[in-house]
Order: sequence, then C-alpha cells, then structure tokens
Amino acid sequence: MRLFAMSIPKLVDVAQSKCLSDLVVKNVRIFHLTDGAFETADIAIADGIIAGVGKDYEGHEVIDGTGLTAVPGFIDAHCHVESSMVTPFEFARAVLPHGVTTAFCDPHELANVAGTAAFQYFFRAAAVSPMDLRVRLSPCVPDTHLETSGAEVTVADLAEWKKRHPDAGLAELMNVPGVLCQDPQVLEKMALFDFIDGHCPLLGGKALNAYVAAGVRNCHECSHLAEAQEKVRRGMQVLIREGTAARNLEELMPLLTVETSPFCSFCTDDRNPLDVQEKGHLDSMVARCIAKGVPPLAAYRAASWSTANAMRLTDRGLVAPGQRADIVLLKDLEACQVATVIAKGRVVKDALFDKSVQPDGAFSRDSIKLRAVTAADFPFVHSDNASVIGVIDGSLLTEHLHLPTESPEIQRVAVLERYGKNGNIALGWVKGFGLKRGAIASSVGHDSHNVCVVGTNPEDMAVAVNALRESQGGFAVAMDGKVADVLPLPLGGLMSDQPMEVVADQLRTLRQALLATGCTLEAPTLQLAFIPLPVIPHLKLTDKGLVDVDKFQLLE
Amino acid sequence: MRLFAMSIPKLVDVAQSKCLSDLVVKNVRIFHLTDGAFETADIAIADGIIAGVGKDYEGHEVIDGTGLTAVPGFIDAHCHVESSMVTPFEFARAVLPHGVTTAFCDPHELANVAGTAAFQYFFRAAAVSPMDLRVRLSPCVPDTHLETSGAEVTVADLAEWKKRHPDAGLAELMNVPGVLCQDPQVLEKMALFDFIDGHCPLLGGKALNAYVAAGVRNCHECSHLAEAQEKVRRGMQVLIREGTAARNLEELMPLLTVETSPFCSFCTDDRNPLDVQEKGHLDSMVARCIAKGVPPLAAYRAASWSTANAMRLTDRGLVAPGQRADIVLLKDLEACQVATVIAKGRVVKDALFDKSVQPDGAFSRDSIKLRAVTAADFPFVHSDNASVIGVIDGSLLTEHLHLPTESPEIQRVAVLERYGKNGNIALGWVKGFGLKRGAIASSVGHDSHNVCVVGTNPEDMAVAVNALRESQGGFAVAMDGKVADVLPLPLGGLMSDQPMEVVADQLRTLRQALLATGCTLEAPTLQLAFIPLPVIPHLKLTDKGLVDVDKFQLLE
Repeated sequence: MRLFAMSIPKLVDVAQSKCLSDLVVKNVRIFHLTDGAFETADIAIADGIIAGVGKDYEGHEVIDGTGLTAVPGFIDAHCHVESSMVTPFEFARAVLPHGVTTAFCDPHELANVAGTAAFQYFFRAAAVSPMDLRVRLSPCVPDTHLETSGAEVTVADLAEWKKRHPDAGLAELMNVPGVLCQDPQVLEKMALFDFIDGHCPLLGGKALNAYVAAGVRNCHECSHLAEAQEKVRRGMQVLIREGTAARNLEELMPLLTVETSPFCSFCTDDRNPLDVQEKGHLDSMVARCIAKGVPPLAAYRAASWSTANAMRLTDRGLVAPGQRADIVLLKDLEACQVATVIAKGRVVKDALFDKSVQPDGAFSRDSIKLRAVTAADFPFVHSDNASVIGVIDGSLLTEHLHLPTESPEIQRVAVLERYGKNGNIALGWVKGFGLKRGAIASSVGHDSHNVCVVGTNPEDMAVAVNALRESQGGFAVAMDGKVADVLPLPLGGLMSDQPMEVVADQLRTLRQALLATGCTLEAPTLQLAFIPLPVIPHLKLTDKGLVDVDKFQLLE
Repeated sequence: MRLFAMSIPKLVDVAQSKCLSDLVVKNVRIFHLTDGAFETADIAIADGIIAGVGKDYEGHEVIDGTGLTAVPGFIDAHCHVESSMVTPFEFARAVLPHGVTTAFCDPHELANVAGTAAFQYFFRAAAVSPMDLRVRLSPCVPDTHLETSGAEVTVADLAEWKKRHPDAGLAELMNVPGVLCQDPQVLEKMALFDFIDGHCPLLGGKALNAYVAAGVRNCHECSHLAEAQEKVRRGMQVLIREGTAARNLEELMPLLTVETSPFCSFCTDDRNPLDVQEKGHLDSMVARCIAKGVPPLAAYRAASWSTANAMRLTDRGLVAPGQRADIVLLKDLEACQVATVIAKGRVVKDALFDKSVQPDGAFSRDSIKLRAVTAADFPFVHSDNASVIGVIDGSLLTEHLHLPTESPEIQRVAVLERYGKNGNIALGWVKGFGLKRGAIASSVGHDSHNVCVVGTNPEDMAVAVNALRESQGGFAVAMDGKVADVLPLPLGGLMSDQPMEVVADQLRTLRQALLATGCTLEAPTLQLAFIPLPVIPHLKLTDKGLVDVDKFQLLE
C-alpha cells in the first residue's frame, strides 16, 4: 500500500480544483530542488499532503506567500533528542520553528540508562509529535564491553521492537570492530534490518570497504574532508554534522557541491537548546554553507531531499504533488531566514503543541544510584609520563598524549559507575579544558552515562559529584569546596523536565559558572560528556579505566 | 532482511583481503558517479557483489583493467521486451554486450494477447536470465474500452501476481483519464502497489498534479522539453526515451544536467534488434549526450544510478562496496565504447547464455484467429473532408487532420480484430507513410495487437493481411497482388522464435521491401504498430473505429 492511499480521492480532486484545498499558500516563489528553478505559484494542500502546485488554487485557509520562498522542510539526518537535554515535546518546540520538520533520532542515550523502556517512550512521543520524529532502534546498548552500562538491549529485544515498528532502521552501528571481525551478535542484529545507520570515525581503506559491504549506509562522524570524500566514493551518505561539541561543517563544506549533493546530508547529532536558541539549527547550517559559496541548490538538497532520498522516505524532500506538506517559507533564501513553517499541512504555532498528550517520563527518574563520595575516592598519583587525554575543541576525537601530569595544563578526570552495580571509579588525566580552579561533573557520559568529572582538585570533584546525587543528574560546577551551579536533568540523568527556554537560561547560567573555573572550551559539558565514549578515537576513560580506542581495549 | 545477507561474511573477509575475491578487476580507472572523481584501483568481487574498491586486491579470476574505465552497469528504465521482437533470452544476448545489465520490462504486449500467462513466462525468463530483468505487472490489459483485446488482467489477477512477486511495481499506468476521474477499478489496481510507473504524454497543469498526487512516479512519454521540465518540477522521474519509433533524446537532451541528473533516466521503450545492432542501446544514448555537451557525470548517472535510485534498487548504480557487481569496462568514456561487461560478477560472454533453461513460449503460438480477407473487406469511400491520422516521423504522437482523401499523400489504413471474437474491421485514412504502391500489415498493433494494415489499394491490403494468417503474425509487405516479404513473429504474433541475429537480418530484408513501396518513414512497421494505440494523442484507429484520444472516445 502506498503512503496516504486513503487521501488519494481528495488529493486528485483538490489537484484539479474540483474542491477547495485545506490550506493554500498563494503566490509564493518555489525553489525547486529538482532542477534549481524558481517558480511563482500556489501550493494546494489537502490531508497534510501537497495536492498541486500551480495557478489559481483556493483553500479553506490561505497564507499569502508574496515575497516568500518555499523550500521543503528540513530533515535532521541523525540526532539524539536526549542531547538536547529536553523531552521530545520540547525538542519539537525548539527545532520546528527553524524549519526542521523531520528528525531521525536514535534513543540510545536513554536506552543505555533504561533499556527498551526508552524505545517505548520515544515511539509514544513520536506518535503525538507535530514534527516527524523517526525513531531508530539502537544496536549498541551497551556500546562496548569496556564500560558498565545501565541496561542491555539484546538481539531479541531488537527483533521484538522491529516487529512492532517495521519501518524503523537500525541506529548508528558504533561497534566497527564487531563488524570487521564478524561478531555473531553484531551480525545477528544487522540481519534484522534493511537499513543501517553508520558511525565510523576515521575509517578508511579496506576496513571501510568491509563496513560498507556489510550493509552500513551512512556516517555522521567524518571530521576530515578526505575521509568524507572516500566515504562518498564508497557509496556512503555523508551526514555533515554540526553539533554543540562536534562541529564538522567548516571542514566538510567543500565536499558539498551540486555534483555530490545527493550524497550529502546535514545532521546535528548532539545540540543543546542554548545553541539552538543562539545559533539556530539546520537553518544556520544552510545559511553558513551558502555564505561560504556552496550553491543554494546543494545546500537545500542536503537539508532535505538528499536525506529523504538516502533514508528512503519517498514522500518528502520536494515541493511537489504527493509529497508530505512539510514546507518552509523563507524571508531570505541565501540567509535561510525562516518566516513560517508548515508541518504535515499545519502551520507551526504555539497551539500546535499539546503537552497533555505527551508520554510520561517518570520511569526514567531516580536513575543516579551513586554513593556519596569524598576527596579520598579520587587518589590521583602524579607521574612523569602518563597517558593523557588530549581534548580538541570542536571535535569528539581526542589525542593520546604522553605527558608529565604536574602541569597547569593538565587536569584530573574521573568516571564513576552510577547504576549501583559495582561502584567503579576510574581515574585519568586530561588536557584541553583549561580549568584554573574547581571541578565540573556530568551525568551525561556517552553512552553508558556514568558520571564523569573533571577538576583541578579531588575536593571540588567530590562536591560536584555529590551535587548530581542531589539533583538526580545533570551538570554541576563546584569551586572552593562549594557547589557553584547545578543544571538538573532528572529524566534518566539526561533530560530536563522543564521547557526548553528554561533549560536555555539554565545553560546560560551554567556557562558563567564554567567560565569562572577558567575553562576555555566552547562546549565544556559536552566535551566532558564524550570523555567516556570508547568508540571515538583515540584515548577515552570509562568507569573501567583508560581505553585505547584504536586497539579497542583497556590500556594496560 | 537486507539483500545479499547470506554473502556478508564472505564480503567482509574479501574486503579486508582476508581471502581471495572471486573476480578482481585490476588497475582500472573508476568513474565515480557520486562526485565525478576518477580513481585508479582494483575492484574485488565476491558472490556477484562488489566487496571492495582499493589497492592490491587479488582474486581467483583476474581482469586487467589497465587503460579501461569502469562505470556501473546501465539500466533501461522502461522497455517492452516483446518490442525487440525476440524472446527475453535473445533480448539479453542483444543488450548485455551494450552494458545493459538491468532492464525494467513491462510484459503488457504479450499480456494483451495471452493474459497472465505472459506474466508467468516473463518471470520465468527473468529467473534464468544473466541480466536482471525486472518484470513489472501490467495494469492496462486491455488498455481501454475503445478496442477489442485478446485478454483481460483483472484487479484480482494483479493482486495474485503481486503476492507472488512482492517487489514488482505496477507497469505504466496509461489510463490517465481513469486516474483523473477516479475510476474505481483503476484506483483499486493502484492501491495494490507502492510503486507505479507512469505514461502521460503531453499531460501538464492541474491534470498532471492530480496524476502525480495519486502516486505515479515517472513518465517515459515526454516529447517536449517544456513538458519534461514541468514533470521534473512536479517530482516525476523523467525517463528519456530513444526507441526505434519514438525518439525523444535530441529534444530532451537539454533537460539533462548535473543538477537534474538524479531525476533523469534513459529508456528505450520499444527498440528492435536491427536498431540495437546498427545503433546500439543505452550506450549510444550516453555517447550522443556527451557528444552534444551533456556532462559525462550526468549522462552516466541517467544511465545507471539515477534510475536505480528512482526505482528503489538500492543495490546498484555505483561502483562501490555492497553494490551488485554490474560493471561496464569502457575503452572510451566519452564515446561510451564498451570493452567488457560484468553482470552480477560474471563476465558477459557466449557461455553465459544457456538456452536449455529458457521457459517455453509455445503457449503463445497460434494466436492469429483471423478469417481470410479479400479487397471487399476494405470498402473505403473517398471524402472531401475526412479525419486523417497524421503520422510524425520519430514520434508516437499523431495529428488529427481534416483533408480530402483523394491525394497521393493519403493512404488507406485498417485495423482487424484478430482474436476471433467479433471480426471487427475498422477503416481510416493516414498521412505520412509516403507509400506509392502496395501495402504493409502488422500483427503488432499496440496494445491489443489486432492486425493493422496500411496500403495504397484494398487488394494488396488483403494479400498482406492474409500473409500474416499464414505466418501466425509478424510483418508482411504486399505489392502488385503478391506477398513481397514476411517477417514471422509466431510467439503471440509479437516475438520471433529465432536468434536476434536472424531477426536483424530479416528486418534488413524487410526494410528493402518497405523501401520498394516508397515508404519514407524511418521505422514504418513500428509507426504502423502504434496506429491503434488509443492512449497516445491525438487521433488513432482501433478495431472499433477512429479514436479521438484527447476526448478519450470513438469519433462520431
């Protein structure tokens, strides 16, 4: 059965002006992503679908499109709603006004905390969202055997959820070594799905061939232009990412041409609401590309059609009949200045957001089962030649450095198991945060979300960690033995229960507290949160200890 | 389940050079359709799939690619194998050497003669073909109520065959008025399929909107550039056609740019073996485009990736890991000179074609159930102002002319019901064949395949028609009361039981006989065969009489 089969009689009538459309955008300049042409016409919409593009359509509701340009709704090709620190409901409120009408989301942050209950929560939230949230099923829960996770998602779980949601693809398959060495569990999970999202930072050559030949279709982890070029040539969709912590747009922009545009997408992966408020979302990626000389056709394709096409959503990505009426009306095409957003035929405005129908996130509360700690729990010993995690601003990649630890450039870092399973506390050293005093702790610690803390001294580290016990997760800053600021994220230790505007304000306050520590990073909490992720090269710290990601094993 | 799931372990190993590939193309220049880049590398193939592209692959079988350029196998986006006048087996023999490794075929010619037995025959032939013949299911059997057909394919038939072949799309939906007026039978047929091929010559404006909104995805009937541009902007894939009779390449070439390339495909629709022998197939379309200034990237995409993508074949169209090993090795990229063809990992050579496994076409023999005719069966009466079918060389469109019939430019035309159902004989007048003497008859008469005959006098028309009774179909030329030449097509009156080389020779002989009649058309038999097709504007003749296609009714 085709999509929208029930609506076809109405669409056929509306298209021929035999009856009124539900909504018509009159006299708007359409930017056609098929050939780059502009056409001034009316867009007639019925049942949330575009019925016709042409002259003299009429409708029950009318938008005057004079002076505006219509483009297809934007599609975030890969994101984790949890990383926006707000609920799916607030996420939609945050991104829809930026023209993002579809987002592929991987609930694996919450799944690592709460297991398949996270899938249920996200599918329920997606069902009532005014934007199209395409929930993927997370294969790597836990990510690896190198950390203690809150939950496990088994092959049988995935099979069960795939049966319930046959259209769901497999979310980012981070276990690259598992594919290359043909781990039977990994292959079993892959075999359940006909669409598999990738995650293969720095992968190239024969290993990349193997990963692609196994059926992985895309990658959002390219941080170098040559890497992205190789991946495109191997048939991968390259999802150009501009998140809060990982920002690859500048580097990868030269990849995006009219030629390559079908094979390029945009995604945010992890972007917090302050960032959305201050910098925008996919709209800002489009604008920045165009400002740097990317042809508008290429930029707008990467923001919509190319992703729809690569992800096999055949009902969107063009302003054309039979397409989902996801339309962005722009005041300015080059600057991607959004005037009005239409999502599935409905104009985006406050009334569209109904909090009463949202699923309850209560199941995810009280997830921080950490004992109170003291400075004695962080028995760091200085060394003349320690393995040090070198953090790079704007990147999730880290360097594996060998340095003496007694330097003002080097800080202490610890990861604490938080599920009450084994009480692991692992210690390490980190360079790049620029802390002069105090400590920063986070219950967001990809992807197992153990508590991680970076600091200049064990006392403040303990204070910061204990603050997160109180708040049931979030971010905490401690200085001089006292809590300086806390941003509570009580849902799974990942998401706030507050509106996105409140969280943005809290992030603004937190930023001040972070500045007071002397921290020089653009997004210190997110950088901290990625310290434990043992699937991104090169050196990471989990609750089990330092991980050499290239060797995919704990450091001796 | 993903495609090729069984092969994944082997692919992953071959990709990493942990074991030998089945076949390796060494040191070949690859033309990447993703970004237009060239890369000299090896292509490693296992289980008919590309495992890896890179340096230093080894294999059990080795092709030296030095000096050659590799591009993905070509895809004919829409054709009727019957129109090649040979069996599917011979069709593959004819087109594979031209690099055509996939063809979407619509068996509706044979289905109009033999019903669903034609589906069975084609699916069986496809199952043993060395090329990938993607059989569509024909919705319009009969085409219309304006003619007598040999068979009917009902909604229930389509449902049954769709169940047997879930991947099959609906073949060209020619009944445009049926869609626009929402004929319940047409909508029922459409509702069975999630992919629907189109056929909507000259359709534009709101009617086009309605047709596309109803779910039709492509059109191969564009004959004007502006028409094709509008269709692309409405989200249709435009299948640029260059057949034997209908040749749109020259007109539509300007449509094909790097910008539009994802939305353009190539197809042949109807091309006979002599044409293939003399002019080539998709290879010649690519070469002609490039010679006229179309960027090679756009031309090669239209010949492969764009079609695979538009038709939702996610396993081909690129030379990249995980893709079906359909590869064309070219001596010359610009001239599209084919050196070697690899189809699903096997080198195309004589040994690949095994006639012994072909399905039997006997069911389709003896399909001409026509009584013997005499000149008295063609009682033409001259008129000063008759409706005359104006044939246009190189086009299937006809003009509706009003002319006096007593002119050397005007010939007689008749269509004779051939299934023994009612013995209908309809008469009309035609301009454009240029006949000076004799008559030409054909049992190929789209799409109901009644016998059609054009001539300068009733005597020769009767001789030509009677010759087809003897041969059980085909083409016949009569002059001076005698049979001048016959090309027998005993399978359904559509296909020869001879090898394609024999048919090409027969066509060459037939061409001489046709020239002797004074006929001036480039492809007179095909032009004749389209005289009865009442779904292509403007004036046509079926066994029921003259049809005004624009009004979709018999002429008063």
